[in-house]
Amino acid sequence: MSHSLVLVINSGSSSLKFALIDAVSGDARLTGLGECFGLSNASVSWKYDGEKASCALEAAGNHHQQAIERLVILLEELGLKQDIIAIGHRVVHGGERFSETVKIDESVLDQIDALSELAPLHNPAHVIGIRAAMSAFPFLPQYAVFDTAFHQSMPAKAYHYALPQKLYQDYGIRRYGFHGTSHYFVSQEAAKQLGKPADNTNVITVHLGNGASICAVRNGKSVDTSMGFTPTAGLMMGTRCGDLDPGIIDFLMSKGWTQGDLQQALNKEAGFLGVSGLTSDCRGIVEAMEQGHEGATLAFEIFTYRVAKYIASYMVALDELDAIVFTGGIGENSLPVRSAVLQHLKIFGYREDATANEQARFGEKGMITKPNTPVAMVIPTNEEWVIAKESMALLHA
Amino acid sequence: MSHSLVLVINSGSSSLKFALIDAVSGDARLTGLGECFGLSNASVSWKYDGEKASCALEAAGNHHQQAIERLVILLEELGLKQDIIAIGHRVVHGGERFSETVKIDESVLDQIDALSELAPLHNPAHVIGIRAAMSAFPFLPQYAVFDTAFHQSMPAKAYHYALPQKLYQDYGIRRYGFHGTSHYFVSQEAAKQLGKPADNTNVITVHLGNGASICAVRNGKSVDTSMGFTPTAGLMMGTRCGDLDPGIIDFLMSKGWTQGDLQQALNKEAGFLGVSGLTSDCRGIVEAMEQGHEGATLAFEIFTYRVAKYIASYMVALDELDAIVFTGGIGENSLPVRSAVLQHLKIFGYREDATANEQARFGEKGMITKPNTPVAMVIPTNEEWVIAKESMALLHA
Repeated sequence: MSHSLVLVINSGSSSLKFALIDAVSGDARLTGLGECFGLSNASVSWKYDGEKASCALEAAGNHHQQAIERLVILLEELGLKQDIIAIGHRVVHGGERFSETVKIDESVLDQIDALSELAPLHNPAHVIGIRAAMSAFPFLPQYAVFDTAFHQSMPAKAYHYALPQKLYQDYGIRRYGFHGTSHYFVSQEAAKQLGKPADNTNVITVHLGNGASICAVRNGKSVDTSMGFTPTAGLMMGTRCGDLDPGIIDFLMSKGWTQGDLQQALNKEAGFLGVSGLTSDCRGIVEAMEQGHEGATLAFEIFTYRVAKYIASYMVALDELDAIVFTGGIGENSLPVRSAVLQHLKIFGYREDATANEQARFGEKGMITKPNTPVAMVIPTNEEWVIAKESMALLHA
Repeated sequence: MSHSLVLVINSGSSSLKFALIDAVSGDARLTGLGECFGLSNASVSWKYDGEKASCALEAAGNHHQQAIERLVILLEELGLKQDIIAIGHRVVHGGERFSETVKIDESVLDQIDALSELAPLHNPAHVIGIRAAMSAFPFLPQYAVFDTAFHQSMPAKAYHYALPQKLYQDYGIRRYGFHGTSHYFVSQEAAKQLGKPADNTNVITVHLGNGASICAVRNGKSVDTSMGFTPTAGLMMGTRCGDLDPGIIDFLMSKGWTQGDLQQALNKEAGFLGVSGLTSDCRGIVEAMEQGHEGATLAFEIFTYRVAKYIASYMVALDELDAIVFTGGIGENSLPVRSAVLQHLKIFGYREDATANEQARFGEKGMITKPNTPVAMVIPTNEEWVIAKESMALLHA
């Protein structure tokens, strides 16, 4: 019997992801996903001890609540329920209010809800999921771990936009950044790999997935990051455009484009998908590029060039740089992306070690640069483990 | 008597700037400005041989035409008219059509006019000015020198946005870049200073004025630049926001902001003015900062931090870097800006030479970094000289 099992919940608007994590080892004992909430085919599926199973939810009703009630039954059946010490919730937006993990009470819930304007797709769904979990597990302490929290250490010059300051004062328009839990985790792990104390380690963490962001971590703290007020900003992504000339939006509005048209084009039809005209998936881009597809080649080139430019720009935020750290689905697995990014960084002395790059895949960490050259490494991210660890730490605090 | 006098004209919508330039020496024999066109107080003023003079234009009528007719009289009075060998026009937008200076004929005029959609404030005004000059100087060859031309050498990965490619195909939405004449001039001058052939020189040119842009120049050619489809993009400027999270615009539209509100806020009320709440002028920002003004200090910090980040990112576009080159009103004169930017670049080895930085002002060029450290220099820009030189070169081609 373990005294370190934390139930980690990520509640979306039409889904609820859960994992039972051993906060000490990081092992996932049970993982699962409720999906299609709000539709007649809502269901929950899970994986335990290598076996997969699923069940349908009732066609109508509160699917978040139903999914969590089904989870309670499952945990009882598996004899795991009594071992859970806490519940940790992933919360996308903590605004300027939350710079660390907090125990959830009514006041915290209200504040998460009040931040819904900054994350309309996420925070309201988190509140629904948290309420469902509180009612199903009334005796367990619940914690909120914020995607934005790690970035609250950014200095003003990094988080303020060159906009009228009224926009900051009235609407809270500033850079918040996202993926904080991932950037935090891999920066901590990188320090371990480097054999340095985290608070004396300077890294640039490069989280490349369907969403992608970069973070400059100075002495263990985030000092700049590429996502901004929203997750549309920064790098080119699967379907998002990243940073943009605002004059383009003005031009398109003059052509009659509506807010909905713009939102659709910049968030759902841009990035890999828009440039290649083919797919939002990086693996598909690389395959098509290898077969000579022009759009895919351009998409790959824009993406890797911009990643490298962002990495270089973040060197400015650091006095010294111990390592570049790749993570996320693309960062952990795509040899050609990492290889192209390092090639772009050769002016700084980076030299890919092709064999090492080949080995650091499918969950394996490792250095991918040659000995005696500046260091780049791969570290698989594990946000759920962070959520479990932070929850347990606060429980014992 | 000189055989190298070129009349350089920059025709705006409500103004017309002119200068009689010796294309060999760069000396300005006569400079002047027509302004308040379209208003009852339209006038022309000029400076010749240290003396200033001006005269009013007729209240009504075509003020571009009137100003140029007055200029013809002036040139005749001064005995300079017969020495002019050509007229060079500054044209903001050459689209993808013009990658170099061209002799103006009806077809070229039509094409400049056709590019008006990309530069609605500038190209139509250029056409008016060029037509007026052609009618007043019917026997002189006229040339168009484009602000965008130098950047037409950018590779696809630098000029394409991570947007649906339909936007490029249908509307020509891509990075064009501006200030090309300035970036070209100072990159050429930098090569001379460095004693290297221009086509083997790699520099990052930093044009900081009320408008501001950065350019990566590889072997004498522009390979990336910070202004984009429009001049709103890239760096923070006097009143412009630069690159932006497009999600901010979406958010403001949801708050009821109109296209006009957005255009005003991002182009006229952002940048130094918006952040400081005080002034769009860099000198005023520095003065206020020295007196402890919080908004001015923040504006200065955001500006210099972002300039440094852009410089670092453009190192990626170059295999090696010979020098960073500061130019433009701020770049040529502001010690604190240059000093802060170099301080931000210390991770790359840049070390300001405070005495040298002090000396390179008010039109003086020079290195501003310490011996045996990476080179940064100041080179005053001279776009009018380029326009004169290019016109004379084509005349003799």
